Amino acid sequence: MLVSAGSLDDAGVFLQEDGSALVLTVDLFTPVVDDPRDYGRIAAANAVSDVYAMGGTPTVALNVVCFPDGELPSRILGEILAGGQETLAEAGVPVVGGHSVSDRELKYGLAVVGRVDPGRVVTNAGAEPGNVLYLTKPIGIGVLTTALRDGALAGDAIARVTEIMARLNRDAADAMLAAGALAATDVTGFGLIGHATELADASGVTLVIDVARVPIVAGAVDAAASGHLPGGAAVNRDYFARSVDDRFGGDTRLVDLLYDPQTSGGLLVCVPPERGGVFESECSERSVDAARIGLAEPRGESSLVLR
Amino acid sequence: MLVSAGSLDDAGVFLQEDGSALVLTVDLFTPVVDDPRDYGRIAAANAVSDVYAMGGTPTVALNVVCFPDGELPSRILGEILAGGQETLAEAGVPVVGGHSVSDRELKYGLAVVGRVDPGRVVTNAGAEPGNVLYLTKPIGIGVLTTALRDGALAGDAIARVTEIMARLNRDAADAMLAAGALAATDVTGFGLIGHATELADASGVTLVIDVARVPIVAGAVDAAASGHLPGGAAVNRDYFARSVDDRFGGDTRLVDLLYDPQTSGGLLVCVPPERGGVFESECSERSVDAARIGLAEPRGESSLVLR
Repeated sequence: MLVSAGSLDDAGVFLQEDGSALVLTVDLFTPVVDDPRDYGRIAAANAVSDVYAMGGTPTVALNVVCFPDGELPSRILGEILAGGQETLAEAGVPVVGGHSVSDRELKYGLAVVGRVDPGRVVTNAGAEPGNVLYLTKPIGIGVLTTALRDGALAGDAIARVTEIMARLNRDAADAMLAAGALAATDVTGFGLIGHATELADASGVTLVIDVARVPIVAGAVDAAASGHLPGGAAVNRDYFARSVDDRFGGDTRLVDLLYDPQTSGGLLVCVPPERGGVFESECSERSVDAARIGLAEPRGESSLVLR
Repeated sequence: MLVSAGSLDDAGVFLQEDGSALVLTVDLFTPVVDDPRDYGRIAAANAVSDVYAMGGTPTVALNVVCFPDGELPSRILGEILAGGQETLAEAGVPVVGGHSVSDRELKYGLAVVGRVDPGRVVTNAGAEPGNVLYLTKPIGIGVLTTALRDGALAGDAIARVTEIMARLNRDAADAMLAAGALAATDVTGFGLIGHATELADASGVTLVIDVARVPIVAGAVDAAASGHLPGGAAVNRDYFARSVDDRFGGDTRLVDLLYDPQTSGGLLVCVPPERGGVFESECSERSVDAARIGLAEPRGESSLVLR
């Protein structure tokens, strides 16, 4: 086993007898958007993201469904599965089966197996002082899906956040591998601060985040200010605030968003400084909007410094 | 892809570029017993069973947890995971991570990856007329877990059905491979009749089941007669009765049990008649109680004949 559950990394990596390595991951969650097909696309992009974040290639997937039989028409399930299949086809991943369980609350996700070159696994433990820190999707997804659930999100904003969530992290991962990134993780339920903390702790560095440089989905600041911060943001703050040295003197609403739990968020990538230009051009070629949001420093008292 | 989701087989099998084949399966369900550690053991035995049923070897697993945070103490979750780990250690399968989602109703299961020799995959489609039909665990598990939920099961009966469910199908699968079985499936939610029907249809044979020879967990007949038949048994009957030619003249309570949905049931194995003795001795060596319950005949009008 190369990366165990204990390291809090995104997926389990298992070395096979023949020297190749398998990545195994499973993810499922309740609907984050109203459209069942979009929900399926988002769940699929989220499930394979764990494999991409490690520098792996997803190869095969299984559906995992918790479905309220009798309460929801089966056509809804068909749409969800079609959405998942659509995104997995884009990723080149066949769905070879699945498991469904009758449940009061709808949940969908996938178990995904991938392959990774054991010599090129990108974990969250490889960052070195001086590395440049990039984020490949904007944050604020949790706030906007909460606003959507609260009936307070306009159609164009729904479409925008849906497309962000449904976007595969494949291109960002390709750019990361091309640039020789030293560490990465995907940003999901623990929010940017949570996943950055884990990466900093696993790597033994302090990450300095320039708050004003962190990209935010349009409308998220206002939605958070209007009370649509999800409960998970407070949970993340309770848990991770102790690891943060907050020296940012600006708008505290921006800091709130750093704790926002993301669904199918982007990759947080650490690149040696001399490779930063390569990473940026590799991202640009693939239409990945990578934002340079900070850097790694020698380990100080805190996991993270906000400035 | 060797076995697709459409074939209704137990798990997806995926041929890799190097010629080896991966089996991928995922299973989760609500508690079937009160003891959390036993629940974990049973879920683990059930999850890896899909791989054994195909003649594969499970190699790595991930926990899948739906947990009512705040309602149940986290110690319960720890016990469940410890139970799962215990049974997977017995199976030689490392748990490399997991995913948990907050949920009103507790559910636990695992995603499992296995390997299988592509030339030796045992599917439910290989049975031939003349094959002898074996079942490696007794049925009635659904009835007894329902009686348990209804508060109508004594401690020794609980212990007995728990041990049956927590037992790995590994030894039965080893015997099946040693004997050169032509087809197999594990018996789970669709009951013996459901899974036998699928095997008969996939193989293009009719399976003749000698009802009186089907092994039954002690107490299950009485529990069924006392009204503890689970709802799933009626669902299975609605769905599968049309494929059954019932010529059995005996106790109809025995036929009821053939529809009983099983949790972590045994393997239903089709063996060429000249290899039946080998299968029986291979089972006996491994302390697997395999019962000879019927045979395969050329395809007739019905998938199954009960006699």
